[in-house]
Amino acid sequence: MSGFADFDAFVRTREREYIDELKVLIRQPTISAQGIGIPETARIILDRTKKRGGIAAEALTVDGGPPTIVGETGRGERTLLIYNHYDVQPPDPLDEWETPPFEPTERDGYLYGRGVSDNKGNLMARLQAIEAYRATIGELPLRIRVLYEGEEESGSAHLAAFVARHGERLRADGCIWEAGYKDAAGRPTISCGLKGIAYLELRVRGANKDAHSSLATIVPNPAWRLVWALATMKSESDEITIDGFMDAVRQPTTAERALLERLPFDEQGMLRIHGIKRFVRGLEGYELRKKHFFEPTCTICGIVSGYTGAGSKTVLPAVASAKIDFRLVPDLTPDKVTTLLRAHLDRRGFEDVEVVPGHGEPPSRWPTDSVTAKAAVDACQSAYGTAPVVYPLLAGSGPMAQVCDTLGIPVAGFGSGNAASANHAPNENIAIADYVDHIRAFGRFLHAFAGRALA
Amino acid sequence: MSGFADFDAFVRTREREYIDELKVLIRQPTISAQGIGIPETARIILDRTKKRGGIAAEALTVDGGPPTIVGETGRGERTLLIYNHYDVQPPDPLDEWETPPFEPTERDGYLYGRGVSDNKGNLMARLQAIEAYRATIGELPLRIRVLYEGEEESGSAHLAAFVARHGERLRADGCIWEAGYKDAAGRPTISCGLKGIAYLELRVRGANKDAHSSLATIVPNPAWRLVWALATMKSESDEITIDGFMDAVRQPTTAERALLERLPFDEQGMLRIHGIKRFVRGLEGYELRKKHFFEPTCTICGIVSGYTGAGSKTVLPAVASAKIDFRLVPDLTPDKVTTLLRAHLDRRGFEDVEVVPGHGEPPSRWPTDSVTAKAAVDACQSAYGTAPVVYPLLAGSGPMAQVCDTLGIPVAGFGSGNAASANHAPNENIAIADYVDHIRAFGRFLHAFAGRALA
Repeated sequence: MSGFADFDAFVRTREREYIDELKVLIRQPTISAQGIGIPETARIILDRTKKRGGIAAEALTVDGGPPTIVGETGRGERTLLIYNHYDVQPPDPLDEWETPPFEPTERDGYLYGRGVSDNKGNLMARLQAIEAYRATIGELPLRIRVLYEGEEESGSAHLAAFVARHGERLRADGCIWEAGYKDAAGRPTISCGLKGIAYLELRVRGANKDAHSSLATIVPNPAWRLVWALATMKSESDEITIDGFMDAVRQPTTAERALLERLPFDEQGMLRIHGIKRFVRGLEGYELRKKHFFEPTCTICGIVSGYTGAGSKTVLPAVASAKIDFRLVPDLTPDKVTTLLRAHLDRRGFEDVEVVPGHGEPPSRWPTDSVTAKAAVDACQSAYGTAPVVYPLLAGSGPMAQVCDTLGIPVAGFGSGNAASANHAPNENIAIADYVDHIRAFGRFLHAFAGRALA
Repeated sequence: MSGFADFDAFVRTREREYIDELKVLIRQPTISAQGIGIPETARIILDRTKKRGGIAAEALTVDGGPPTIVGETGRGERTLLIYNHYDVQPPDPLDEWETPPFEPTERDGYLYGRGVSDNKGNLMARLQAIEAYRATIGELPLRIRVLYEGEEESGSAHLAAFVARHGERLRADGCIWEAGYKDAAGRPTISCGLKGIAYLELRVRGANKDAHSSLATIVPNPAWRLVWALATMKSESDEITIDGFMDAVRQPTTAERALLERLPFDEQGMLRIHGIKRFVRGLEGYELRKKHFFEPTCTICGIVSGYTGAGSKTVLPAVASAKIDFRLVPDLTPDKVTTLLRAHLDRRGFEDVEVVPGHGEPPSRWPTDSVTAKAAVDACQSAYGTAPVVYPLLAGSGPMAQVCDTLGIPVAGFGSGNAASANHAPNENIAIADYVDHIRAFGRFLHAFAGRALA
């Protein structure tokens, strides 16, 4: 580890400067869902990437999408792709922020602001790690490619086209995905994939307008139709019962099962945090972890029909709808889900239940013993002085498959977040110590991924 | 019928005066749900009942309830109870009224205003009929008792206590209920009962707050719990499957079946009005009418959970709820429904689904060949020159059982409404001709109910 003593000292000396640099980026709102600050932020990032980062970079667009920044630096046998996004979630609800979302604020060792965790912090920390590597260790022993997207938080609508057009500039032997988090027990974690997502809406129409509920004897009720249709999709024991759906689920490999066996998972902490007495199906241990990491979901995110105000109204609703979110594992894809669900409903006489597809991403799952994952484990072990927890994937979703599955690049993700970073929520935060540690770990990762020994 | 020529002439002469008298009553808002105008209206009604009506009446209250007006006049072998209510529904949504709800307005032969149909119009028409009877035919050949309630539109919370305290002043051989309507084909109708109602809310809690939907693998979702619970309550073929529920449904008698066989029911008109292709279960004819008049309902009036706005939000909801309205036929009661449902849910492991009882009324169904019903049929035949349609009951609900079942008084209802009277809705209306005809029919009814021949 002696090789990184200078690196660590360099980073600690510049800690204040690095945090200030991140604060500048946080002060610039970049809300892709609302079209706020996209070109402005792209300019800041491009400038930082080229000038201090020493990365030959440019901002490209496809089909009227936002600027996507790609760049390249260093030379070596291996090529690493770094994926980050520079856009952030909308800051609403504003009145729940203790300090304004776009005024980065330090409190008790934490930095608060929209995007500090998701994902401007990691983007900046990794640029700073490259800089520190060059300053203390020397020339990069690998080729680094960067991909900074500007619309991840609103669905990455142009990313697939971008990869199709510019894939050659993204090819690599490994990819570091946007983020990673310390778990509730403070352990660093690494994840090697993401679940996919298929978000869709079910809609049912009954009469042409709400009717008096005394007519419920004879006039069909779309709320009941929706309930009956939903009840065919998932059983009371939480098993997804859409025809053919579970057949598409790839079972964990022997290696993945072994990983799951030893995966730390703070069950009591999760029960406490969510205020529940038991998990779904009363599961625990291996079976709970297997369900969480290797099984898909079918979630009612929202359902509404008829009168939902205070008191009572004797109404027979004219419309009913539900928003459904499927989290996907291999080999489920959004298209497959929509097709299976349509056939499933039709087969049961629910032709009247309309299926309206929304946002979709396929899943992306990579071996936990890839060159990327192994280098990440070594880097975290060295930087944190403890073995990281390796997750087969994060249960969340993102456009990983559009990049890594398309180009065949094994993934690992680790970063500066914590278990209460509040991504997408008010008071998003990172610990300043975790930010510094991510720079320290990322410098080591570059070294390890290039095949150099860390100790 | 010659005996009623003078009566009819008298009513036609006073038509303008009678309508103006009704307008005065409409101009006085009486919104029991909002505590508006109750004592003011009670004073107007009491004054009208005593002074011009010649009815010995008084306003009584029980347990802090609104004034309930009871009165008595006439002598004879039979006693008739007239039930009306003087309160009205709130007029919202105000901007959908073509003329203000409390400014009674005549347009194209119709009178518009809140309460013209439900129920101030019938209340006033019947007082005017009694007056016309005395003026043209002579002394009343029966004893008439009146009961004018002031909180029917907000649940009749004090009526049961009133009947318990003052039941002796309400005893009668027959009761005329508040209302009746011409059907869509313009035929006068009579109904001999009401369905009851049990309105309740189902509530389920999951985690202590909304969670990220990626946790749906392991954190229970109250929206799914609610859907599964609901799906056990009614089958896809619209059969109520709550244990023991349908066992409590009294089957139609031979007489009722015969009535149903010949009951006119404009199926094509109903399909058109509601913009639907088929009725529930694809029913038609006798089976459709039987379901409508003799079967209970279990209706989702409202359901809500999670995110219901535009676009998508990947949320795992913390709470879910549904408002359920049961329309009851004998021998179902609100208490029985709540008890059966609780046991049904518990038996299936849905102890987490809370059942919160709301407004309830037992059903009330009376023979269609009672003395009351027969006199109503004769009166309508005479006044309208056509045989009325006799419904076993109205599919709506009201506090009929609290009065008539408690005291054992057979019911009939007929009145001045039409198929588009828009009770409880904007632009409530009656045809002025129907109003006059109700006075004409009601005068005849008094005669027939007292055992006098009409022809």
